[in-house]
Amino acid sequence: MRRPGRILTLTTDFGTADGYVGAMKGRVLSIAPGAVLCDVAHDIPPHEIAHGAWCLRRAAPQFPTGTVHVAVVDPGVGSNRAGIVIETEHMLLVGPDNGLLYLAAHDDGIRRIIEISEDAKEWYKSTSFDGLTLFAPVGALLLAGMPLEDVGPDAEDVVEWPDTTVAGQGNVVEGRIVLFDRFGNAMTDIPSEVLRHRIVERVYLRNAQELRYCDHYAELAGDNRPGALINSDGRLELSLYGDSAQARLGLHTGDPVRVLLRPA
Amino acid sequence: MRRPGRILTLTTDFGTADGYVGAMKGRVLSIAPGAVLCDVAHDIPPHEIAHGAWCLRRAAPQFPTGTVHVAVVDPGVGSNRAGIVIETEHMLLVGPDNGLLYLAAHDDGIRRIIEISEDAKEWYKSTSFDGLTLFAPVGALLLAGMPLEDVGPDAEDVVEWPDTTVAGQGNVVEGRIVLFDRFGNAMTDIPSEVLRHRIVERVYLRNAQELRYCDHYAELAGDNRPGALINSDGRLELSLYGDSAQARLGLHTGDPVRVLLRPA
Amino acid sequence: MRRPGRILTLTTDFGTADGYVGAMKGRVLSIAPGAVLCDVAHDIPPHEIAHGAWCLRRAAPQFPTGTVHVAVVDPGVGSNRAGIVIETEHMLLVGPDNGLLYLAAHDDGIRRIIEISEDAKEWYKSTSFDGLTLFAPVGALLLAGMPLEDVGPDAEDVVEWPDTTVAGQGNVVEGRIVLFDRFGNAMTDIPSEVLRHRIVERVYLRNAQELRYCDHYAELAGDNRPGALINSDGRLELSLYGDSAQARLGLHTGDPVRVLLRPA
Repeated sequence: MRRPGRILTLTTDFGTADGYVGAMKGRVLSIAPGAVLCDVAHDIPPHEIAHGAWCLRRAAPQFPTGTVHVAVVDPGVGSNRAGIVIETEHMLLVGPDNGLLYLAAHDDGIRRIIEISEDAKEWYKSTSFDGLTLFAPVGALLLAGMPLEDVGPDAEDVVEWPDTTVAGQGNVVEGRIVLFDRFGNAMTDIPSEVLRHRIVERVYLRNAQELRYCDHYAELAGDNRPGALINSDGRLELSLYGDSAQARLGLHTGDPVRVLLRPA
Repeated sequence: MRRPGRILTLTTDFGTADGYVGAMKGRVLSIAPGAVLCDVAHDIPPHEIAHGAWCLRRAAPQFPTGTVHVAVVDPGVGSNRAGIVIETEHMLLVGPDNGLLYLAAHDDGIRRIIEISEDAKEWYKSTSFDGLTLFAPVGALLLAGMPLEDVGPDAEDVVEWPDTTVAGQGNVVEGRIVLFDRFGNAMTDIPSEVLRHRIVERVYLRNAQELRYCDHYAELAGDNRPGALINSDGRLELSLYGDSAQARLGLHTGDPVRVLLRPA
Repeated sequence: MRRPGRILTLTTDFGTADGYVGAMKGRVLSIAPGAVLCDVAHDIPPHEIAHGAWCLRRAAPQFPTGTVHVAVVDPGVGSNRAGIVIETEHMLLVGPDNGLLYLAAHDDGIRRIIEISEDAKEWYKSTSFDGLTLFAPVGALLLAGMPLEDVGPDAEDVVEWPDTTVAGQGNVVEGRIVLFDRFGNAMTDIPSEVLRHRIVERVYLRNAQELRYCDHYAELAGDNRPGALINSDGRLELSLYGDSAQARLGLHTGDPVRVLLRPA
């Protein structure tokens, strides 16, 4: 894949109030002056790796081949967890080895995994701000053409993020809520593939409340009840028209969702 | 106007936590690699078209001629409302036909309105994320030089956003609060033109509380009372020095504001 | 220093909902079409100059030489406070003369201070939005190569921001909490230099609660007690692993922190 890219994206839980992201951008532009910087998301809830992993999976595939994605949601900063670079079919992902990069990387096809060597001379691991002192410089150097070999040794595997992607068993599919977005939509881990070519007969929330299954948000207009539909991430999502399903139904991650399919 | 531009701005209510905006940026850069992306605002309150319309009207005129503005605040995603492109004197605006683009477009002088044809081959209308699958690609293709004709047929008119822009009747001007900003300033729909060359004698909030009329925020310093002044958008605004007028006075959109002018 | 730069950063308390920042970006790009814009932070708590000053000090030094930093946190907009440009060893800082620029400027070495002349023809001071009408254009013109002399006359001094940077007296160092970040970490004004080459025996919060002193965030893992460590800004910081020290301990700016050092 290694066509030299121009774009470096940033995905963090650093927020937009403290200048941490600004510091990372400055470091990248100091190392790779021609970098085109692109914010993916910085208000990921603090330390929520799953949220960050889904953001990356949502945004990263849309960028041109050769884009470098630097991501930091890292409750374990300063611990022994490794920093990694994952090369996939179309991109390079740089960040902590805690599952954050996994969904996007797996989805695009993992080609090579490198563990960032901390004795390299161009960067160093700080105790409190790896985003600035480790991940931003590694990303910038890769963008500037540094070979992967110079980042560190090959690694066997990475921490995976459990996208449980439940499989259908007979006519029942059981999943869970894994993520909420700003609008209060609740994404489940039930992928569209499981439902494809089957007719959905019923969708139950928490084994009790029945939800209307539909094709479009707009079908829920005028209806004061929540619905279920396949969202743009290819997952079953619970939604309430013009309101937050999360707030109105008191939803939490982990809440069970069950789909009954018409017998094939 | 159609000098090819380089800049594409984004204005949405998608927030900065979910990666939706990141996905749109990736799509734009994949289609128009030389695009200079510029965030206008993404924390527009969910589904508040008026707020988005005023953001665009505030920011869009400041950009160079030829800039493409893509905006998405779209409670009706997936419904039958059309996607449109408006060409004005100096810019192109792309988004849903729900009034969002109207204030900025009208202000700059509408030249042509195009309804985005959904049978075009370069994009498609998704059921849940038009920002990614419809508006971002259309904006990027226009930036890259695609003729307006290829986007779709001409349209007669667009949904207008009621900037009531009250006219003065005699010596009394009656308006309403239409928008709050981060500082809790309350913008009304009373334009500076109505007050020009006249002397403001009194400003009343909700027909009861009298406000001090002044020229500058700084005149309100040391004063614990709210004041009224013409803001940088050319509208009468209620403000409280160093505090939120919205929170402290319990203001809401729609609250009536009345200005008494000295008889001419 | 005056090598012409390409990068202009923005640091404000304007938030990301109202389009004020978007308007500033448009103005900059209209004046300096080749500018590379970079957001440092826009969700600085409204009117909190100290927060903005620390953001700038954190981010600005990471940018390439010649970068122009435009910053606006300005409770006194419309008053008589001056607008200034500070030239330092590696950068140009543009903003209100209220202390906001001081920490970053002092840290990098102040070379020259210019008071922005308001009778210049290329910009004008508005009553309510200096960010758009004064600071953005001055920053853009400097980026485009305008000589400092054309901005206004030299000034003798600037408003300083009291980074008290307490000095050690004997074996006791007394400081205060000055800033919180998104994670609820509490930064004090005790600089690492004071503790260097000395052994920290005890850290006390509010003269009563004893805190664990450590080298890394990760040392606090599994510990339900707050710790104190030197952060990436070179200041003593109070932190709670995986939680907000600010919220859990009910911390406020100004809370006293005392360090006991082992007698040398």
